[in-house]
Amino acid sequence: MADAALFDRSADEFAEIQTGICRALEELDGEARFSIDRWERPGGGGGVSRALAGGALFEKAGVNWSRVDGELPADFAGQLPGEGTRFRAAGVSLVLHPRSPMVPTVHANVRCLEKGERTWFGGGADLTPYYLWREDAEHFHATWRAVCARHPGVVDHRRFKTWCDEYFHLPHRGERRGVGGIFFDYLEGGPGGDLEAVRAFTADVGRSVVAAYAPIAERRRSEPWGEGERAWQLLRRGRYVEFNLVYDRGTVFGLKTGGRTESILMSLPPLAGWEYDAPEPAAGSREAELLAVLRQPVDDWLV
Amino acid sequence: MADAALFDRSADEFAEIQTGICRALEELDGEARFSIDRWERPGGGGGVSRALAGGALFEKAGVNWSRVDGELPADFAGQLPGEGTRFRAAGVSLVLHPRSPMVPTVHANVRCLEKGERTWFGGGADLTPYYLWREDAEHFHATWRAVCARHPGVVDHRRFKTWCDEYFHLPHRGERRGVGGIFFDYLEGGPGGDLEAVRAFTADVGRSVVAAYAPIAERRRSEPWGEGERAWQLLRRGRYVEFNLVYDRGTVFGLKTGGRTESILMSLPPLAGWEYDAPEPAAGSREAELLAVLRQPVDDWLV
Repeated sequence: MADAALFDRSADEFAEIQTGICRALEELDGEARFSIDRWERPGGGGGVSRALAGGALFEKAGVNWSRVDGELPADFAGQLPGEGTRFRAAGVSLVLHPRSPMVPTVHANVRCLEKGERTWFGGGADLTPYYLWREDAEHFHATWRAVCARHPGVVDHRRFKTWCDEYFHLPHRGERRGVGGIFFDYLEGGPGGDLEAVRAFTADVGRSVVAAYAPIAERRRSEPWGEGERAWQLLRRGRYVEFNLVYDRGTVFGLKTGGRTESILMSLPPLAGWEYDAPEPAAGSREAELLAVLRQPVDDWLV
Repeated sequence: MADAALFDRSADEFAEIQTGICRALEELDGEARFSIDRWERPGGGGGVSRALAGGALFEKAGVNWSRVDGELPADFAGQLPGEGTRFRAAGVSLVLHPRSPMVPTVHANVRCLEKGERTWFGGGADLTPYYLWREDAEHFHATWRAVCARHPGVVDHRRFKTWCDEYFHLPHRGERRGVGGIFFDYLEGGPGGDLEAVRAFTADVGRSVVAAYAPIAERRRSEPWGEGERAWQLLRRGRYVEFNLVYDRGTVFGLKTGGRTESILMSLPPLAGWEYDAPEPAAGSREAELLAVLRQPVDDWLV
């Protein structure tokens, strides 16, 4: 049976997570401040969208919280667990686009859904570098492995890592979006259903985003870069746009069913480029090194 | 019954149209030259993609010709006229992105499809200005009205103008992509089927693209502009990307069924931007004037 108290608690917890993340990111950026937009959804519920642009570190950053309820379109409702079409959803999602091509873009999301008699959690985090430092990818993956290890019996890091590689996939490019991380959905706590343990795990993911990302940003923010690196970043950001607008379930579903456009498209980069048939990076270049990993995901960064 | 000779003739005619358009656009640009990429499609057929970048007028331009055949995925085949899943398609499509925000982006396409016993034509042209000059929109629409008038009994300009406004629509923005033009599909020549007349009309559309666009580009290429106009153009180009990746049937279908990615995505701008909750342009500004027309298409530019 849907656990209404647990949903309420998660929604509040996600709001606290949003506040904590924004505070930490402002400190990390050092200059810019997040704006605050409170909005209501005509169908039920609402949210708080927080955006930052033109910072010392972040060219554009968005951190969204929402708690909504209403009726799903019948065809979409049929693809989700639980009876009927009524649903509630609460979550936080963020996408950070640094100005420097040496600092990776990061995306993270945690959410709780309720439909009919079912309640489940989903979320994840994935890293999209433009230049690859293995120790950065290792730190990111090690953070998520450690988070998973804090919740034994509830979650499986290995499975979530693979799920992430499979989800953030651009088949038309033969590439992954980045170096992955974790992705999970439909977590109900298994037979017997320890949903409270799943809630605790999901909140832990949300609270660990800054720890997964900030050390990488700190390490790379002073790396020198020039026009060539910027052009490469803009091209790669074009791929980010392609993934989000063509494949991302939340984005496509949100846009086509009347979600709040500005909040949904917060994920898009401030500037992105496309070049016809862009030349393959020279063998041995740092660009080629990144592409190799996008074309063939590293099975395990931590061995 | 499918008219194989007519399909062949159209495919050849489209190739000539591509060549003519590229020659005229090189002359219009004055500096850059189109590259030529000949490619084969693993499933059958192939094409010629021609691209230009960094010109005096065009920041990026692409003109594609293709002639392909093969099997359609069953679910998509069911949405098209004609029996079975085998098809042939030939066509030319182009998207021109000028550097100056004062010169509009333009898209045009003509195509012939054959499936089972059916053969039909489709295509159109639409103009996407960043700043509006009414006489430019009027010239564009007048060109298409005159083309339609040369083929009495076959086509209906009024219907194709409305179809264009309906097709190039971003519901999540409450905007049209631009000021429209014409759009048509499934033209078989009506009962009795004067397909030859439809072919002649479609070829006339392809041959009229330069006449519809070049005078506008010539008039606006020397208009002064600065950073503010460029920023507005980049934001509007972001909407162009949104339309193509979320709604355009050819793009989404092509990407998801293994079309040639570089040719399909030739339409994307060289650079595009997104800003969270970009401020509404000031009342009375030229940006506001454009937006008003995108939000409420002009019913008839020519009265």
